[in-house]
This record gives sequence, structure tokens and C-alpha cells, in this order.
Amino acid sequence: MHNTGYVHGYSEREAVRLHDQAQTLTALLHHDTRYPPGSQVLEVGCGVGAQTITLVSQSPDARFTCIDCSDASLAEASARVSDAGYRNATFRNADIYDLPFPPESFDHIFVCFVLEHLLDPTRALSNLKDVLKPEGTITVIEGDHGSAYFHPDSAAARNAIRCLVEIQRSVGGNALIGRELYPLLVSAGFRNVAVSPRMVYADASKPGLVEGFTKLTFTAMVEGVGDEAIRRGMTGRAEWEQGIRDLYRTTEPDGTFCYTFFKATGIK
Amino acid sequence: MHNTGYVHGYSEREAVRLHDQAQTLTALLHHDTRYPPGSQVLEVGCGVGAQTITLVSQSPDARFTCIDCSDASLAEASARVSDAGYRNATFRNADIYDLPFPPESFDHIFVCFVLEHLLDPTRALSNLKDVLKPEGTITVIEGDHGSAYFHPDSAAARNAIRCLVEIQRSVGGNALIGRELYPLLVSAGFRNVAVSPRMVYADASKPGLVEGFTKLTFTAMVEGVGDEAIRRGMTGRAEWEQGIRDLYRTTEPDGTFCYTFFKATGIK
Repeated sequence: MHNTGYVHGYSEREAVRLHDQAQTLTALLHHDTRYPPGSQVLEVGCGVGAQTITLVSQSPDARFTCIDCSDASLAEASARVSDAGYRNATFRNADIYDLPFPPESFDHIFVCFVLEHLLDPTRALSNLKDVLKPEGTITVIEGDHGSAYFHPDSAAARNAIRCLVEIQRSVGGNALIGRELYPLLVSAGFRNVAVSPRMVYADASKPGLVEGFTKLTFTAMVEGVGDEAIRRGMTGRAEWEQGIRDLYRTTEPDGTFCYTFFKATGIK
Repeated sequence: MHNTGYVHGYSEREAVRLHDQAQTLTALLHHDTRYPPGSQVLEVGCGVGAQTITLVSQSPDARFTCIDCSDASLAEASARVSDAGYRNATFRNADIYDLPFPPESFDHIFVCFVLEHLLDPTRALSNLKDVLKPEGTITVIEGDHGSAYFHPDSAAARNAIRCLVEIQRSVGGNALIGRELYPLLVSAGFRNVAVSPRMVYADASKPGLVEGFTKLTFTAMVEGVGDEAIRRGMTGRAEWEQGIRDLYRTTEPDGTFCYTFFKATGIK
């Protein structure tokens, strides 16, 4: 899941609240990922380094190799990590289906928000297993847009989310992949597979989560495919706008919003 | 949610596994509910005592008053608690809309799987608040059938669940009430309302949960409304049976199943 919604115009106090919120989500997803000193860790699909910063700071004595297929993203991730003062990560352009590493190169592998975009996640996992040492671990984190439900319920809002899922499917992705991590890791040959759901629940008692997750992460992401969904004839302009309004409606004082991320680990 | 599926024919080993499973769910929902010695606790809608046993055993020095509108259920609950050797509960037939207690009679109130059946849950909560002492707590637990999702996904299975939700709605209930606990408690005048989702996630690494929850609790419950759903013309026989098959399909080795209960607390 990519946050497309951190736009300008927020006050400093607001910025602090959103930062706290991002910290909450980071803790929810990553607090239990720590690698031993000296271990070699492969981060797959690091993007602009959103997770890399957390990885290198939580395991300052592990060595990270971070790959992505975009040079621009790699440059940004590298700068971000350097600027934060960390020296324990190197960045490299690589294809997940054609990894430029010898077999059994890494002690651990970390994959976050990547499999949802892949045509063949099982083959990708199998390739990753090849470059993992025996007894090494893999950690996979993915969202699941079918896990979103809310109050007040709304058919238009559910339909807007469905458009996002269908668009992602039409380009070969799977926005419902979170619930599938167990069979995916098992079918790729990992053992001791354990899946831990990480549920985000937002109500008015958690204003940072309402703002930072429901509005600026999830609803902003759905909003981002509106023109495409209408262009494809999946919905009409009025219906779409109703759906987006109804998603924002869940951020009012009597609203609630639920979403679940899935974190899976397995051993080679 | 009522388990209608504990049928005969299981081996002793199976029975042990299911008992362990029930224990897991009990722990998930109730482990953090403990009342101080000497406190007076009202359990609302105790039914046949499924939760009462847990309450009295976890707080053996609190005094429980357990009400229900069915004399048959009260007799069964009372026998169950006595047979288990507990003496700290009394049972009484009472109407949640016309409580036979003076104002401020109780230190704490516990309500589990009750609001989903009520036409006016806000009025019920408001009545309960009247018999609660100032600074007393209320604890409310409810499921949410709209929180169920699974792999493999299936439109027929989702439709079968929708039938159950619609049937419950047509008799004045709300099978999606879990997500609404926050606004319900706030609107009834409770303060410091805090909602804690309790997610059940079942895959093949947790066979007791697959058997005890996915098959024998959730799917059995959906199956139970099949004839009614078909009689009402909400679905056809073939479509219904496909939906039920698809729910059982999620219990195969590559399947997964998710459901979330909501536990809310508030203070008067």
C-alpha cells in the first residue's frame, strides 16, 4: 500500500499528530522484526525506503541489501537512509524474477507490500528461497483491501473499494493477497509458516489513526483510481463521488473503520 | 453468536481438540475481564451460561447477578454453574427494557452477544447505565458477520453470509453491530469508551481453530438459516449449497478464514 495522500497545508501540530500516527502503524507492522548483528538481510522492493529506515534502525548491526526495479526509487531510498545517518544498507537495481545473487547468499529476507503487485508471487517466493540460506527466515507483509469494513456501512463505498481491487487485478496484481500469505509461503516450500494479522481499528478516540490511516492512507488511495474507474465504465461519476464521501463519512465522530495487514514468516 | 454445531460422533481426541479450541476463543474474548473481590456484577442475557462459567471462575470473589428472558436458559445456566462448584452467581428472569433493580445497584455490567438481537440497543444500554453506580464499568462483546472474509474468496459464500445478516435484520437484529460498539456506547452516555477488536484468523497451522471456529461455529451457524433463506426467496437451493461448500472449502489445507469480535468498555 502506498500513501499518496500526504499533501501540504497541514499545521505543525497536525504534522506531529500524523507523524505519531505513522509511528503507530510502523510499530504495529514492524516492532517484532529484528535481525542479529552481522546477519545479511535482503530487502525486496524497497521502493523509496519507507520500510528500509525502520529495518536499519531496528537492526543497526545487521547488513541490508535493498533491491528495487526503479533507479529513481533506489536513489531516493539511499539518500533517505544516508541522511538518517545509517551506513548498514546498500542499494541495487534487481529483478525479483532474475536475482543477481548466488544461491544461499542471505540469512534473512524481508518483503513488504511487493507481492500484491506481482503476476506470479509463488515463483517470486521460490526465487527468493533459492538465495536464502538453509534455516534462514522470510518475512512477508501485505495488506488486504477486502478486509476493509466500516460504520456507517455503505454500498457505494464498498463499490469504490471493489473498483480499486478490480483495477489492480486487471494489471496482474492482487489487492486481496493478505489472506493468501499462508498458502503462498507453503506452496513456495517454506516451513513453519506462521501468519499474524495486524488489524487497524480507528474510531473517534484515536484521531491520529482516523486522520493518518482512514483519510490520508486508505481513502486517499481509493480516491486515486477514481478517474480510471470511471474511464473504464466500472462506475459513474455520481456513484463514485458518493462512495468517496461515504468513506470520509466514517471519519466523523460516530464512525469506525477497520483494515487488516497480514505479516507472515517462514523458514527455509 | 450461538454455536449450533457441536454435534455427536466425534472421537475423544477430537473432543479434546475442540475443547482446547473453545478455550482459545474464551481466552481471546475474556482473558482481560476480572472483577474485584466483593464487587456486584450484572451479567445481561446470560443464556445457558456459556460466558457465566468464565466470569465466575475468573472472578471467584465477585458476586454475579445473571439475567435472561428465558426461564429454561436460566435453569440450565444455574445448573451449569452449580455443577462446576461455583456459588457466586444468582439467576433471575428480567427484561433488559424494564430492569427490576434500583438505580445504581451494580459496580460493573457485562453484556456478551446480546445487543445484536435487540431492536433498540441504545435504549438498552441507557437502561443498564441507570442501574450502574457512578464510576462503574460496562463491558460489551459482539461479533460482526461483515468482518468474515476468507480464501479462496467466493461470491456464493459471501451471499450466504449476506442472507444470514438480512434475516437477522428482518427480525430487528443487527449482525454487523460489532463495528458500531463505539458510537453505541458513546450515544448511551458512557465515557472513556475503548474498543478492542479480537480477530480470529484460522489456517491449516491451527487445525483446532479451523474445526472449532470456521466449521463448527461460523459455517454451522450460516448453514442453520439455509431453509429460511430459500423459503424467503433470498437465494436458490443450488446457489445456497455452493455457498456452504465454498465456506467449507476454506477449511482445506490451503484455505484461510478471518472473523472479528469487538470488545468495548466504558465508564459511567
